[in-house]
Amino acid sequence: MKGFGMISVNNVGWIEKEKPEAGPLDAVLRPIAVAPCSSDVHVSHGGAGPFENRILGHESVGEIVEVGSGVKNFKPGDRVIVNCVTPDWNAYGIQDVRANNAHDIAMMGSFKFVIAKDGVFAEYYHVNNADANLCKLPDDVDLADALMTTDMMSTGFHAVENAKVQFGDTVVVFGIGPVGLMAVAGSALAGAGRIIAVGTRPNCVELAKEYGATDIVSYKEGDVADQILALSGQVEKCIIAGGTTDTINQALRITKANGIISNVNFFDGAETIHFPAPLWGLGMSNITITGGFCPGGGRRIERLISLIRANRVHPGKMLNVRFDGFEKIEDAFRLMDEKPRDLIKPYVVIDW
Amino acid sequence: MKGFGMISVNNVGWIEKEKPEAGPLDAVLRPIAVAPCSSDVHVSHGGAGPFENRILGHESVGEIVEVGSGVKNFKPGDRVIVNCVTPDWNAYGIQDVRANNAHDIAMMGSFKFVIAKDGVFAEYYHVNNADANLCKLPDDVDLADALMTTDMMSTGFHAVENAKVQFGDTVVVFGIGPVGLMAVAGSALAGAGRIIAVGTRPNCVELAKEYGATDIVSYKEGDVADQILALSGQVEKCIIAGGTTDTINQALRITKANGIISNVNFFDGAETIHFPAPLWGLGMSNITITGGFCPGGGRRIERLISLIRANRVHPGKMLNVRFDGFEKIEDAFRLMDEKPRDLIKPYVVIDW
Amino acid sequence: MKGFGMISVNNVGWIEKEKPEAGPLDAVLRPIAVAPCSSDVHVSHGGAGPFENRILGHESVGEIVEVGSGVKNFKPGDRVIVNCVTPDWNAYGIQDVRANNAHDIAMMGSFKFVIAKDGVFAEYYHVNNADANLCKLPDDVDLADALMTTDMMSTGFHAVENAKVQFGDTVVVFGIGPVGLMAVAGSALAGAGRIIAVGTRPNCVELAKEYGATDIVSYKEGDVADQILALSGQVEKCIIAGGTTDTINQALRITKANGIISNVNFFDGAETIHFPAPLWGLGMSNITITGGFCPGGGRRIERLISLIRANRVHPGKMLNVRFDGFEKIEDAFRLMDEKPRDLIKPYVVIDW
Amino acid sequence: MKGFGMISVNNVGWIEKEKPEAGPLDAVLRPIAVAPCSSDVHVSHGGAGPFENRILGHESVGEIVEVGSGVKNFKPGDRVIVNCVTPDWNAYGIQDVRANNAHDIAMMGSFKFVIAKDGVFAEYYHVNNADANLCKLPDDVDLADALMTTDMMSTGFHAVENAKVQFGDTVVVFGIGPVGLMAVAGSALAGAGRIIAVGTRPNCVELAKEYGATDIVSYKEGDVADQILALSGQVEKCIIAGGTTDTINQALRITKANGIISNVNFFDGAETIHFPAPLWGLGMSNITITGGFCPGGGRRIERLISLIRANRVHPGKMLNVRFDGFEKIEDAFRLMDEKPRDLIKPYVVIDW
Repeated sequence: MKGFGMISVNNVGWIEKEKPEAGPLDAVLRPIAVAPCSSDVHVSHGGAGPFENRILGHESVGEIVEVGSGVKNFKPGDRVIVNCVTPDWNAYGIQDVRANNAHDIAMMGSFKFVIAKDGVFAEYYHVNNADANLCKLPDDVDLADALMTTDMMSTGFHAVENAKVQFGDTVVVFGIGPVGLMAVAGSALAGAGRIIAVGTRPNCVELAKEYGATDIVSYKEGDVADQILALSGQVEKCIIAGGTTDTINQALRITKANGIISNVNFFDGAETIHFPAPLWGLGMSNITITGGFCPGGGRRIERLISLIRANRVHPGKMLNVRFDGFEKIEDAFRLMDEKPRDLIKPYVVIDW
Repeated sequence: MKGFGMISVNNVGWIEKEKPEAGPLDAVLRPIAVAPCSSDVHVSHGGAGPFENRILGHESVGEIVEVGSGVKNFKPGDRVIVNCVTPDWNAYGIQDVRANNAHDIAMMGSFKFVIAKDGVFAEYYHVNNADANLCKLPDDVDLADALMTTDMMSTGFHAVENAKVQFGDTVVVFGIGPVGLMAVAGSALAGAGRIIAVGTRPNCVELAKEYGATDIVSYKEGDVADQILALSGQVEKCIIAGGTTDTINQALRITKANGIISNVNFFDGAETIHFPAPLWGLGMSNITITGGFCPGGGRRIERLISLIRANRVHPGKMLNVRFDGFEKIEDAFRLMDEKPRDLIKPYVVIDW
Repeated sequence: MKGFGMISVNNVGWIEKEKPEAGPLDAVLRPIAVAPCSSDVHVSHGGAGPFENRILGHESVGEIVEVGSGVKNFKPGDRVIVNCVTPDWNAYGIQDVRANNAHDIAMMGSFKFVIAKDGVFAEYYHVNNADANLCKLPDDVDLADALMTTDMMSTGFHAVENAKVQFGDTVVVFGIGPVGLMAVAGSALAGAGRIIAVGTRPNCVELAKEYGATDIVSYKEGDVADQILALSGQVEKCIIAGGTTDTINQALRITKANGIISNVNFFDGAETIHFPAPLWGLGMSNITITGGFCPGGGRRIERLISLIRANRVHPGKMLNVRFDGFEKIEDAFRLMDEKPRDLIKPYVVIDW
Repeated sequence: MKGFGMISVNNVGWIEKEKPEAGPLDAVLRPIAVAPCSSDVHVSHGGAGPFENRILGHESVGEIVEVGSGVKNFKPGDRVIVNCVTPDWNAYGIQDVRANNAHDIAMMGSFKFVIAKDGVFAEYYHVNNADANLCKLPDDVDLADALMTTDMMSTGFHAVENAKVQFGDTVVVFGIGPVGLMAVAGSALAGAGRIIAVGTRPNCVELAKEYGATDIVSYKEGDVADQILALSGQVEKCIIAGGTTDTINQALRITKANGIISNVNFFDGAETIHFPAPLWGLGMSNITITGGFCPGGGRRIERLISLIRANRVHPGKMLNVRFDGFEKIEDAFRLMDEKPRDLIKPYVVIDW
């Protein structure tokens, strides 16, 4: 079968591979729609190691073509949404954490696509623990909305969960790419009052407002932290969904004692995380710095889908460039790599 | 000075009293707007004991006319919103609980208006611990919205906090009077997916939908629990904001193992709370039953106001009958006591 | 093979059954040591339905004799501790709750021994999801200690977790049978200050003190709630590990506003749970009533074992009657049914 | 009156000051016993700014000599324990946080002794919000135990609270000075299984074991993180109660995904906090870094005292050098500044 991936570092293209097979608990799917993610781009440039002949992609809606003998709740022909994080639910690590993303072996061990096996930009792809990790696609849910639950919405909302947003919190969201936009939407849905979004791209600014941002701050207008302090004074919660490690400094400047800084930004290529010790009160600030990647599992997706069905949010609005046809995965990927100023996020509809 | 209150049990009217004075930490206010509450009606009928010559009322926006020597952040002339719960913040009890409504002496000891002293339906009224319990009224906030934060919104949102609503929870709200309507709005703002509201009054049904209810269930169409199970199966969270103690039975029938039943209904006149033991798994269900009255303090109100300023919710829409003038408190109170079918909640604007 | 169980209601004895087989994720074990539990007795009298030819028992340490093809971390010959709650970790329900005991189908659906299949009082018994539900028995852990983690310690400590015991809480534990004793030990290990244990049996009283109880209250000395109020005034947390549904009334009388009542008692045969509404503040008390059965999984046991290895607690001390030999399961069971005054808990060592 | 303090940077000695007076909510005390703290030493060297003529000291047990007109629960002659953190409980900030140490104005604004006013090394000292911030000294509590609740135990236990220690967690405590020793004791009392303490001083090592450490690791035996990984593999929780900012690196190396690093170390003189980005998973580790100074208020102390009365812990054992007499404050302070190898912590009994 054919897949689009990383032939070697900085060299992407079409790869020929064996069709995957389903173990007893697994499923094999064909893609209905997929979306490239900035972390696919990152990996293609060697960010996760010098992979060779590795199919990329981890955001997908698909149709099941095969299930293992132990799969109880899914069958070939089912249309499903695939959480980009697919834990092994029989591993001990999963029992320790509510986040459901632990693993016994290594950090991010539940993020298997691309890192541990081929991804979803393929004619067929493999999903472990199908009963636990797949979610049926309801007929009344828009395909673009469904596709965005698999990573962007799950990750943006995870930032909000980690920030423990409470009624009336002021929340600053640094970065309004797709994850930041979802952090804005999630903050509004978690009870934030004022939401200050930091970003400049006009399409993103517009959508940030639609998703619930009350204020927009741009680095073009001066120091971002100074602008926020002038607007609102220090705030309860900061979400970092973009920028560099310097963003942590800015967040520390504007966060109240006892506040939370919740990061979901992948600090691609960063060597050190560093900030002035006095900004963290030389250890005495009671400011919590937390963050990480999103929870796995099908029930996670089912919860996000219920928000879409209740009309609380429509993450599919972020998909502002659509391609049609399996072979267009390449164009979508290259567009993501270029990231033109008016792009929010592209997707590819393969067969719907 | 004049106040409207309870002359004796089942006998309300105008009362002549001494104007209150401010102790070192206190303030004296004149009312700008007030609203009667069903608990005022309840008290007037003897529900909290045989009070005599007690001025009623605990929901108010007012103007400060006097402050004690120890008050730092407020001064005469300030327009303020008054949380209906006004703890003594130097009491030990307050240090134990996040809810900020504990008291060293007695349950509900922080609910002082009417229960421990005269209420707000008066030419002047007293607020203890003014710095902690008052909140400045911002110019850009609608008076009706502000007035509804003092109890209805705080209580409805407290039900949501106790229910620990998470992204994608299905929430059932029993009762769509003002508190139930606010529980609907709060659930939507806390991340609920499907919200099933139980009620029948057309004005309330319409507003429940506007505040985020996705489904309406009426007892007129059959057993409420049966209807909900048919709609959604068992749910994660139930909020009880109306009904009788039998509502707990219905909630137990429809709540999943590990779910939460959060009550903010005052079971006026109930002698016993009882439910079939098997519905609670003979003790093994892991269903939590919780509930109580709302947190106190000015910061609580400031948080709710920030939701209004961010346009997340407008609780003032519930005030569908307006009276003008201090003497109209009587008409508003009597309307609340009669509770005609099209009433949601009345209020009185005294001087604006 | 042979097993001891319920031939019919109120009729226990030895049963001949087929040896179980391991599915792909499962294991088959032979018992090393088992203990009867009051819930086995309860079931034998028809409490969970009119089972016929059902082998009893859910507390065991065993040796693996067979594993399924998908089991990765265990092999025949391994000595293991078996959590009495063995969830299907690929079910959706498990993803919703930290307690890890949810199930998609029914309340207590993860409690499979006896209820859904034969129990552990057999020459061989079956464990589903072996990788997730078994825990290796370390060489340095006493057999009796290990056996007591499977239910008594897990349940007693679950009561403490649900009570959210904090540093310096006063905790009342109603009932000092094995689960109550473990609730005492767990409360001490979770930071409780004063621990008031309610019970009378001398062996249990002695052990309660050793496990951390600071005060003992007996119903023989008068009303239990009155005695506790005289000792300490109202308390932060109550744990119900014995008694009848009336114990809830007593707990409500002695629990502070904003306190928690955590139940792990199985209200065997109770028809109604009922308490005076004013004791719950007519709904306004902010007292939480919670409870249920204990979390499943091998990691749970591993955590409890780590407390034993650190010498924090030795639950095996509760096993004050020892039998030796498989056929003595009958004597142990009958002793549990009779429950003589000096018994805390019996166990049977089969092959060690 | 006389006080021992900081005449100028690096110049301590006796100072003559006016006796403080009590405002309406305040108390004035004379000291019964005091202890110098490493942060007093730090301040004396200019660490909190170039104070002049500032009396040092914040750990004390005292006798009330005067109370303000608004103080309800304390009177002259009462012997009381004084939390080193004394919030203004009528400030808005306090309402936002469970930690009870927020302030509207500045980080650590509730830590008033020495920073905002004279400390406790004086013939008389002032305590704001006496009803909220003082705790009666029970007759059956040892003076040394009581004195250690005011900062060391409160801070060490705060580290444990922030680490959210659960049953069976493995906890590493870096540093076994007084705060680290209390973090060891607190971890054991919060349910930790294995507790690995990092330190070398023999007196401290001995006490760490007595307080519950199961393993001791010393930097003299090689890299601390390597040793811990060899002992236990990665752990759930790290508490930093000593060392330098490099300790954060070591903690990141040994903490599991989804773990917590809880710091209560004051990084005296540190300019930057920095660690290799990959150790934090380039932002994807789900490891939380938190920390800060301890909660204020008398109820906090009352809770800690209840642990002492229940015989769960005796923090007074850390006070291994005793001085007698007010004028010995100077000797105690200078001993603290020198910190000889066998010192754990000195104290001064003034009048008992």
